[in-house]
Amino acid sequence: MSAGAARLRQRISLLSAIGGRGSSVTRLGLTAEEQAARELVASWLRARGASVRRDAAANLFARFGPADGEVVLTGSHLDSVPNGGRYDGALGVLCAVEAVETLLDQHVAIRRPLEVVAWADEEGARFGIGLFGSASAFGRLPPKAAERRDAAGVRVADALRGLGEAGEPAAAHRRDVATYIELHIEQGPNLADADRPLGVVTGIVGILHGRVTVRGRGDHAGTTPMTARRDALAGAAEMIGALEDAARHRPGTVATVGEIAARPGAKNVVPAECTFSVDVRAPDARALAAVSRQFRQAMRLVGDARGLRSTLDVLSSVPPTRLDPELIGLLHRSAAAVGVDAPELGSGAGHDAMNAVLAGVPSGMLFVRSRGGSHTPREHASVEDAALGASALALALRELVA
Amino acid sequence: MSAGAARLRQRISLLSAIGGRGSSVTRLGLTAEEQAARELVASWLRARGASVRRDAAANLFARFGPADGEVVLTGSHLDSVPNGGRYDGALGVLCAVEAVETLLDQHVAIRRPLEVVAWADEEGARFGIGLFGSASAFGRLPPKAAERRDAAGVRVADALRGLGEAGEPAAAHRRDVATYIELHIEQGPNLADADRPLGVVTGIVGILHGRVTVRGRGDHAGTTPMTARRDALAGAAEMIGALEDAARHRPGTVATVGEIAARPGAKNVVPAECTFSVDVRAPDARALAAVSRQFRQAMRLVGDARGLRSTLDVLSSVPPTRLDPELIGLLHRSAAAVGVDAPELGSGAGHDAMNAVLAGVPSGMLFVRSRGGSHTPREHASVEDAALGASALALALRELVA
Repeated sequence: MSAGAARLRQRISLLSAIGGRGSSVTRLGLTAEEQAARELVASWLRARGASVRRDAAANLFARFGPADGEVVLTGSHLDSVPNGGRYDGALGVLCAVEAVETLLDQHVAIRRPLEVVAWADEEGARFGIGLFGSASAFGRLPPKAAERRDAAGVRVADALRGLGEAGEPAAAHRRDVATYIELHIEQGPNLADADRPLGVVTGIVGILHGRVTVRGRGDHAGTTPMTARRDALAGAAEMIGALEDAARHRPGTVATVGEIAARPGAKNVVPAECTFSVDVRAPDARALAAVSRQFRQAMRLVGDARGLRSTLDVLSSVPPTRLDPELIGLLHRSAAAVGVDAPELGSGAGHDAMNAVLAGVPSGMLFVRSRGGSHTPREHASVEDAALGASALALALRELVA
Repeated sequence: MSAGAARLRQRISLLSAIGGRGSSVTRLGLTAEEQAARELVASWLRARGASVRRDAAANLFARFGPADGEVVLTGSHLDSVPNGGRYDGALGVLCAVEAVETLLDQHVAIRRPLEVVAWADEEGARFGIGLFGSASAFGRLPPKAAERRDAAGVRVADALRGLGEAGEPAAAHRRDVATYIELHIEQGPNLADADRPLGVVTGIVGILHGRVTVRGRGDHAGTTPMTARRDALAGAAEMIGALEDAARHRPGTVATVGEIAARPGAKNVVPAECTFSVDVRAPDARALAAVSRQFRQAMRLVGDARGLRSTLDVLSSVPPTRLDPELIGLLHRSAAAVGVDAPELGSGAGHDAMNAVLAGVPSGMLFVRSRGGSHTPREHASVEDAALGASALALALRELVA
């Protein structure tokens, strides 16, 4: 094993102990666990001479090279979904740290500002705002994001204050990023199926995140005939089926309901209200719009038939994004230089790179082969593949900053 | 307003302040709120000379008359559903207190043991065991009831210990009840539609309470094609639709899913597991069995088509029950004596009287007209109707104990 691989292995283990239990990791965004992970990563970077700061959205930036000028930024995120795995996000931060340390070990002169970033709350598991940290930094926060509340009623602003920030994430907006490169596990089976350790990402699906609220009438479960009910959960179940149908009929398109709640939530009360999350993804804008339209129509039809009122609040809507052709080329050359013929791939998962692209920042992404799915404790990337990724990333960064 | 009506009005107000907010009441079974309600009722009964005790299931009994012999029992329950109303259960306890006070005020000699009961946790909103207190007293607790846990992981046994009991509800079993009479709000529209303040109940629907667990596989919401998913919530939604269909096709039969949860419960993770409650009610055993059979078949078909495993845990299954013909006659005569021609009704809601009947105790039930549904803050019975009910109940009790 190379020195880099050994260092990565140790750091994967140290990092996954924060919020970890066996191979499972629960390190939600804007919590004490995510903060502890940031502190750990910051300590490694400070030890190598970085100038480290946190911004108003709790993003961590560690700078090497000149104090002024347009920045080459590289990294990923440190938060996880509930009961997630060790690699999603975390591996991208660790490989960015490793790549920069490689440049320092090789005494490469860093002539342009180079920053490692750990984005806060990429998953949006707690507050429902995916890509929170990068949205803040690239000026793409949804309206009133700071006022959003978690399940316990805590606002984003208060969670930020609890971490020592001012509670105004929009203040994190920065305009000095010239290039963004992110390494991430693939989260899909393509690299494993093709037997390649690395891949170069060409584009990212468009993603609609929303929350549906269905309102009916609470009634006694025993004394209210089926025909007299306005059952919010029964209506929601029908809408969920319609959403699934709409996605099934469009190749490459997926739709997911991952969260659901019924109120008042007692077994002998007909639900008066039901809320559920909606996540729709498609590789092109037309398919995304079509699924959204078909689902809204189903909401209306089901609501009319059952005497329910329903609303779809769009929490975020990110169009499909294309990564930068020159950076795609650079990442291909860098992968080849470490002996990998890296195939081109689309990403079905959203990434912080989307916000960079949408803010006009040329961006590139490198995928590392992973197995066992993702957002589960089974997700796994080998340390050898990760070390290859870090080496390729180091070569690409060298070309950008030396 | 009569003296009885004035006393009832004041006591409805005092009782509904415990766990109350506006016209809404949240006083779940086996909580400090339910305990406070018991203490309040006990204080009124002690003041009239009752010998008061709590049993191992936290039921409250207040005895008048001889210390030994078979007991005439009357009352209802003091717990509510979450965000329920002021009258469901509570009015039956208050009218039982009022009826006994009427006998005492009239210096009726109580020659047989007469007890007022406040059953604990009738709704089963916290632990999923409906009719908990009466099931304990009549020897009909489901297996391992003491080990059941609430959403926070607290066991029934520990909740009972927190109220000062020994944590063994089965020890509440008693065999000395000769007659049980319960007054309750109707919870349906029949008396209001017929313009009658009181009704005599002839039978109670059979009720199946169960919990379905659907197990699939957690996956990333973006990288897992629709065709490769084993989505537990999407499968549950289809099963909920099938349950609704099964009930819709059988007149007088109802089915309700009031609680649902998806795990891990993040918007960008395909649910690995979904649990939901099932409540099926039918006036005859054949219809109840048919709906249950049809639903189990749908669970299998949906599971096979989607690669899911699902189980239905039956938490309780109570067959349809008939109330005692002699007590039905007595309650008719008693209602007539206060000027009410009380119609006969079936009950679509379950009641503690079911457990008495199933234990072989002749039982009767009197319904008081109510409006606005039930299990909601809108439920309402007028104090005049309640006073008529208490007067009729007093006459019936007088015939049984004097």
